[in-house]
Amino acid sequence: MNAVDLIRRKRDGGALDREQIESFVAGVTDGSLPDYQASALLMAIVLRGMSPEETAWLTDAMVRSGVRVDYPDVDGIPVDKHSTGGVGDKTSLVLAPLAVACGAVVPMMSGRGLGHTGGTLDKLESIPGFRTNLSLPELRKAIGSIRCALIGQTSEIAPADRRLYALRDVTATVESVPLISASIMSKKIAEGIGGLVLDVKTGSGAFMKTLDDSRTLARSLVAIGEASGVRSEALITRMDAPLGTQVGNAAEVIECLEILKGRGPDDTRELSVLLAVRMLVVSGVETDAAAADRRVRDALATGAGLEVFRAIVQNQGGDPHALDDYSLLPLAPDEDRVLAAADGYVSLESEGIGRAAVALGAGRATMADLVDPGVGVEVIARAGTEVRAGDVVLLVRHRAGRGLEPARPLLEDAVRITQSPLVERPLVLERITNG
Amino acid sequence: MNAVDLIRRKRDGGALDREQIESFVAGVTDGSLPDYQASALLMAIVLRGMSPEETAWLTDAMVRSGVRVDYPDVDGIPVDKHSTGGVGDKTSLVLAPLAVACGAVVPMMSGRGLGHTGGTLDKLESIPGFRTNLSLPELRKAIGSIRCALIGQTSEIAPADRRLYALRDVTATVESVPLISASIMSKKIAEGIGGLVLDVKTGSGAFMKTLDDSRTLARSLVAIGEASGVRSEALITRMDAPLGTQVGNAAEVIECLEILKGRGPDDTRELSVLLAVRMLVVSGVETDAAAADRRVRDALATGAGLEVFRAIVQNQGGDPHALDDYSLLPLAPDEDRVLAAADGYVSLESEGIGRAAVALGAGRATMADLVDPGVGVEVIARAGTEVRAGDVVLLVRHRAGRGLEPARPLLEDAVRITQSPLVERPLVLERITNG
Repeated sequence: MNAVDLIRRKRDGGALDREQIESFVAGVTDGSLPDYQASALLMAIVLRGMSPEETAWLTDAMVRSGVRVDYPDVDGIPVDKHSTGGVGDKTSLVLAPLAVACGAVVPMMSGRGLGHTGGTLDKLESIPGFRTNLSLPELRKAIGSIRCALIGQTSEIAPADRRLYALRDVTATVESVPLISASIMSKKIAEGIGGLVLDVKTGSGAFMKTLDDSRTLARSLVAIGEASGVRSEALITRMDAPLGTQVGNAAEVIECLEILKGRGPDDTRELSVLLAVRMLVVSGVETDAAAADRRVRDALATGAGLEVFRAIVQNQGGDPHALDDYSLLPLAPDEDRVLAAADGYVSLESEGIGRAAVALGAGRATMADLVDPGVGVEVIARAGTEVRAGDVVLLVRHRAGRGLEPARPLLEDAVRITQSPLVERPLVLERITNG
Repeated sequence: MNAVDLIRRKRDGGALDREQIESFVAGVTDGSLPDYQASALLMAIVLRGMSPEETAWLTDAMVRSGVRVDYPDVDGIPVDKHSTGGVGDKTSLVLAPLAVACGAVVPMMSGRGLGHTGGTLDKLESIPGFRTNLSLPELRKAIGSIRCALIGQTSEIAPADRRLYALRDVTATVESVPLISASIMSKKIAEGIGGLVLDVKTGSGAFMKTLDDSRTLARSLVAIGEASGVRSEALITRMDAPLGTQVGNAAEVIECLEILKGRGPDDTRELSVLLAVRMLVVSGVETDAAAADRRVRDALATGAGLEVFRAIVQNQGGDPHALDDYSLLPLAPDEDRVLAAADGYVSLESEGIGRAAVALGAGRATMADLVDPGVGVEVIARAGTEVRAGDVVLLVRHRAGRGLEPARPLLEDAVRITQSPLVERPLVLERITNG
């Protein structure tokens, strides 16, 4: 391949062939393609797009830049869920144990929080001792013994994606449906799954703000999965106000434990249940959605889900006592409150709450930042609640005032009081399957 | 400046402000902006464009990345000509001496050939001993003594352009009117001129193949010049067949000497005279074009232009005997011929002839290639000539067959025989001034 000719072809709106895409990914993987050529091509892809076929080839080449894990000793089709990211989006910790309790095999590799959305690994690591950096042999062993592991990506998984993502982050080439799709799907396919449920968030706190854009991304993701032999479907779900009541790592773990104990906020529970149901269906554990729904709700009611979560925590070095004694989870000691400025109905803008949580230390502005598991924001008066001026809407958990100065105006701006109650959209707006 | 925000702004079709453009150029000049960010921005500029204002700011910042030369002891407005490049385009060697003979001051900085078009420096260096790498003090001294120097760019001139150009070359970001305009004009403005005549070629052998594209480039160049206080105008000129009869460095010098002696092909002479006339007008040596035309033709008829050229050659270390004894110019010893394949009228496709000349060694595919001054192609039967099958159309000068194998099919394809004579377009198609 002549790299300049390849860049020129995409620049002029042409389609790359499979061989060209493979040679690009190979050059990224072994470092023989200079960063300045890779970034010029990435910008051309952002502005010229890629066909579904090119995107599938890119994904496949990125999968093959590393290892595609397999689980030879496990029966059943490994299944996973991926969320495009939201504020208070914590369903993985609920749905993975529930699905496993119902017979699914879940080798879940997640990421860390970046920007205003949280990350599953950060939440899990607020449990004392919990290790997310399992090796591939440890992953295989966990799947063989308890049918589940909740871990970060190992270095063997899609190394081309790591180098490309680092470059995209510093060259303003993140926002591209084909590049986002290939990045997400290459990592998921390499996990060795045969089924995947995608939770594509839409709304102010989501990466995709409009339903149209969310639908485009969902279709792209599902098409790639199916092209790689992974049975895939996407739910487009609401991300207007935060999901549930807690935003912040340790507090989100507590919310998930409450749900696994039969309590907790309705929306987190219902979305977790629905996603677990779809996981059972795409992995063939159940063919009938109504039967799957009964099984998942049963696992919730009997505490079977909580017991699976306990086994996961124990298997990955976490302190299982924290599941019963929340004082072992490191909530920050200092509190502040955001009050309603007028009488009326609460409306919450999740992106601002997510940004405030990052300012407090719950998330990262850059990957180099350290996360404080104890800080965050609790929603006291949820969207649609009628309040009087001076009522508490948000409870802010901070550590000695750190980050409070930038967080407060963000939170005050994120709380809107309206004179008539806003009608929330349904939690799930659409389900997208292939074709 | 946050580089990522700047790239994102251009990516999304926004306009950069003056400060952002200056910080981009400063980062390129001092190396603090990584190549991968520069190349992402360059690709966004190629695909999103730049307004005339942005282009003028970019040019100005590139000028100020180095020295803008001045000539405090010289009276008169220094003037130059720039050509966008063609095959057999050798007018600089004729028009600079003619303009100087008529009273102009010409500090001409030129480039080397790259791709299928030749470069003035390569032609001049075929004169034994001729030095094109004068320092700035040597340039000033030459202008003070003989009012002219024909040299390459010194390292003080627009260093940002050098780094950007090298990056554009390897990232498929060359083809952009704003980037091309800023590159050309920054170097010309930095020479310290007050007047500039642009020869924008159009046709098969030109960078811009269509009249529309040539016009767009001409307007962009003229607007930048005027915005920087350089009185500028452009002629859009025909580049269908090669200009004149010689393509190849030493042979082109001979053609120019023949013209300065009152002989040589009409088209090379007429274009050189016309460009020299416009140089006299834009620099204020003559306000009336007809009077300027008389002066230039007089300088040609009396041999005054030849004597200026002799002074330039002597001043820059060249052997002045070569101007009288062409055997001192290193023409290659071996010859081949391309014959007419049928009876009819000759039509010549200059890009193919230019590419064949590069294959023979007269030009460069990359800047690392060495040039052979003696090889090239002579047009024996010019465009429009009636020939019989077997008549010689092109004479190929090669060195021991080097490059002949790729050159021959290019040349055979570049010679077309038509059944009725093609009417050539006028040599000058349009003159573009500001506004």
